[in-house]
Amino acid sequence: MSEGERAEELIDLVENNDLTGIRLWLAEHRPYEIADELSRMDGGEAIIPFRLLDKDRELEVFEELDPGQQQSILLGLRDTAFHEILEEMDPDDRARLIGEAPAKIATRALAGLSPAERRMTAALLGYPEDSVGRYMTPETVILHRDLAVGRALEVVRARGAEAETIYTLPVVSDGRRMVGTVTLGDLVVSDDERLIKDIVDVFAPRVRATEPVEDAARLMQEANLVALAVVDSEERFVGLLTFDDALEVIEAADSEDMALQSGASPVGEHYVSVGVLRLVGARSVWLMLLIVAATLTVNVMQAFESALEAVTALALFVPMLIGTGGNVGAQSATAIVRALAVGEVRVRDLPSVIWKEARVGLLLGLLLAVLALAIGSLLVGVDVAVVVACSVIAVCTWAAVIGSSMPLFARKVGVDPAVVSSPMVTTIVDATGLLIYFSIATVVLGV
Amino acid sequence: MSEGERAEELIDLVENNDLTGIRLWLAEHRPYEIADELSRMDGGEAIIPFRLLDKDRELEVFEELDPGQQQSILLGLRDTAFHEILEEMDPDDRARLIGEAPAKIATRALAGLSPAERRMTAALLGYPEDSVGRYMTPETVILHRDLAVGRALEVVRARGAEAETIYTLPVVSDGRRMVGTVTLGDLVVSDDERLIKDIVDVFAPRVRATEPVEDAARLMQEANLVALAVVDSEERFVGLLTFDDALEVIEAADSEDMALQSGASPVGEHYVSVGVLRLVGARSVWLMLLIVAATLTVNVMQAFESALEAVTALALFVPMLIGTGGNVGAQSATAIVRALAVGEVRVRDLPSVIWKEARVGLLLGLLLAVLALAIGSLLVGVDVAVVVACSVIAVCTWAAVIGSSMPLFARKVGVDPAVVSSPMVTTIVDATGLLIYFSIATVVLGV
Repeated sequence: MSEGERAEELIDLVENNDLTGIRLWLAEHRPYEIADELSRMDGGEAIIPFRLLDKDRELEVFEELDPGQQQSILLGLRDTAFHEILEEMDPDDRARLIGEAPAKIATRALAGLSPAERRMTAALLGYPEDSVGRYMTPETVILHRDLAVGRALEVVRARGAEAETIYTLPVVSDGRRMVGTVTLGDLVVSDDERLIKDIVDVFAPRVRATEPVEDAARLMQEANLVALAVVDSEERFVGLLTFDDALEVIEAADSEDMALQSGASPVGEHYVSVGVLRLVGARSVWLMLLIVAATLTVNVMQAFESALEAVTALALFVPMLIGTGGNVGAQSATAIVRALAVGEVRVRDLPSVIWKEARVGLLLGLLLAVLALAIGSLLVGVDVAVVVACSVIAVCTWAAVIGSSMPLFARKVGVDPAVVSSPMVTTIVDATGLLIYFSIATVVLGV
Repeated sequence: MSEGERAEELIDLVENNDLTGIRLWLAEHRPYEIADELSRMDGGEAIIPFRLLDKDRELEVFEELDPGQQQSILLGLRDTAFHEILEEMDPDDRARLIGEAPAKIATRALAGLSPAERRMTAALLGYPEDSVGRYMTPETVILHRDLAVGRALEVVRARGAEAETIYTLPVVSDGRRMVGTVTLGDLVVSDDERLIKDIVDVFAPRVRATEPVEDAARLMQEANLVALAVVDSEERFVGLLTFDDALEVIEAADSEDMALQSGASPVGEHYVSVGVLRLVGARSVWLMLLIVAATLTVNVMQAFESALEAVTALALFVPMLIGTGGNVGAQSATAIVRALAVGEVRVRDLPSVIWKEARVGLLLGLLLAVLALAIGSLLVGVDVAVVVACSVIAVCTWAAVIGSSMPLFARKVGVDPAVVSSPMVTTIVDATGLLIYFSIATVVLGV
């Protein structure tokens, strides 16, 4: 792979201030590759190669950057360049940039726009954050249902250059009332004389502009759509959600789920360009809550302190036992959070999921108990080993039930299931697992 | 949402054998919705509604199913229906189905194909599993670079119906030598007289058919491509990878990464239709390895048994301490695994990543140590609390370094970074963290 070399090159070139070298490098790379390299620099560095881009590629590169990176680039530009870029951006990308930018940038940006573009942006900004409205493009070619295919094709050829996409063409009746969609492919392979209303797909899925964009993106993925029609509350066509935006939404949602699963808030930016303090901020909240919750484990241990003093060997297996319980719980939680995210499991499956996971946990517990019995017998003796083995069975079953039911309960009460993180499950299983362990020890060993 | 109600309906209808009801339900739903419901039933149940589908929708529904589900449907069909479906499938979907099916189904399937379709399938099956070749479609409309736009549009209109996609049109010179691509959009908005070679994008990315399909799919996502051209080792065009297949590949890869991150093998199928034993199989391997590795924690505890006997209070904080260390390590590992997967971090970033994570870990440790000191002082006394607090700082720093460097080392030696699961990091941090804890205790308390 030449990836490593190339990367070294641009950063080196920028550090050496080798303008000719940078120009050459830029000429040899595609916009998304350039954006990728810029994302790895801080704002001050990134502005140097950005300013050296040809006018027509500047915008393409800019649109590939995250909103955060876009802001720092914008801050480094003079007024003319600043306004030119904003004026040329796709309205949906612009709305998201302005929506997330500090007020100072947002006001300067809106003030510089032409009236038409400002109107379009303001309309998109009227939709809630993370709703379809913020991500859809209003720049489409709309076809009336009474048009003939040949005429429609002429319309597309004449107006297509200004639209963000022409692969999916919304079909409307009077008053922009949504009828369905026609794909450019269908249009191209149909006879000129046919009418749009005869080839329109009236069952094409559509979503409301106020719906969550992640749901819409997953729908596009399931239904294999290049673009999804967006309507207002009166079923009037307002825009299209395109697959590239959907892909970005899904990638961001998955990154977010993964971060949440590990008990961290999503940072939503390129790892390399995020500072240490922001990472600490994103990760510390849950850790602090969890260490406080872990006080429970100290309480449980204290409650059984006399048992611990009588049989010190019991303490030796605490890390192994709670580690194993935590692992089983985290596996269940991860599986269910993912199944919920991609729509394989629904809230009403709760009883069957718990029943399935309980059996999985029990079987895993039995397997692991055999190993625990062997390890325990070898290291300390059979009596403690039996306690450990019995506890492993109980704790694994319990962990699987907790790990699988918590995300489902979260969804049920309207909380993102991904906040049921592995660390949260682990901490709960730790405290309750110790309770199980020492209770079994008290019974079996009589301490 | 009507999702819940609808789901109950179809399953109920099938259970009551209400054929009229099933027919009505099918007529009211789209192929991907039908496929989604079928995925939630077992093979025997799913065949009933499947057989009631109209001939022309049968195929659409079938192509939306996972290969495993496709197999069980095929087994329930009579020979004519079996062969009709296979003959009509897209060649890439068919190749994947046959490639994953047991030999008995595969042979029966290949034998029934027409010579042309069999040739296409055999060619795709010649590529390694998980390579681009298995996922690309050979059914495209190829344009010669010397064609005029008007003529090219006629070609597309005449032959488009048989192609899987016409949004991206490969442009070749003599001998199918890849020149670049033209999008249908560009073609439609260009003047009839222009030549393809004047509008072709010669910089359009292309990949080799033997490359891993996940890399190609991520490239499509980065470059916002509806389809990606695939070439052989001599730069001849062989097929297109389309965005719907790319989306599926990315979703599957992300699901796989999430499963691996929790220490489970990916199951690669609908959660609801996977049996208990398969789940146990997928999760048990790592759990068994990890419980054996956890023997180390017992060893460490044993080595410091005299200290434990002298100050029983030390044992009380073991779960809290190793839990916190594990959480910090898992956060770092998850962040780096994801950053590697989406290309934000590369192997050569190893030193800067470790340096960043060490600082993050240290700061998190300092924050958490304050809480640990307070909790410890309240529950047992200042001396043990000081030991716990110092250990928290050291363990968090260490955990962040371990958690972040392990995925990078894995990638460096060619192993999927996602196998560096949170449970693996946790187990390592458990054993080493205890060593740190008891060493500090020995020094501070003099036990």
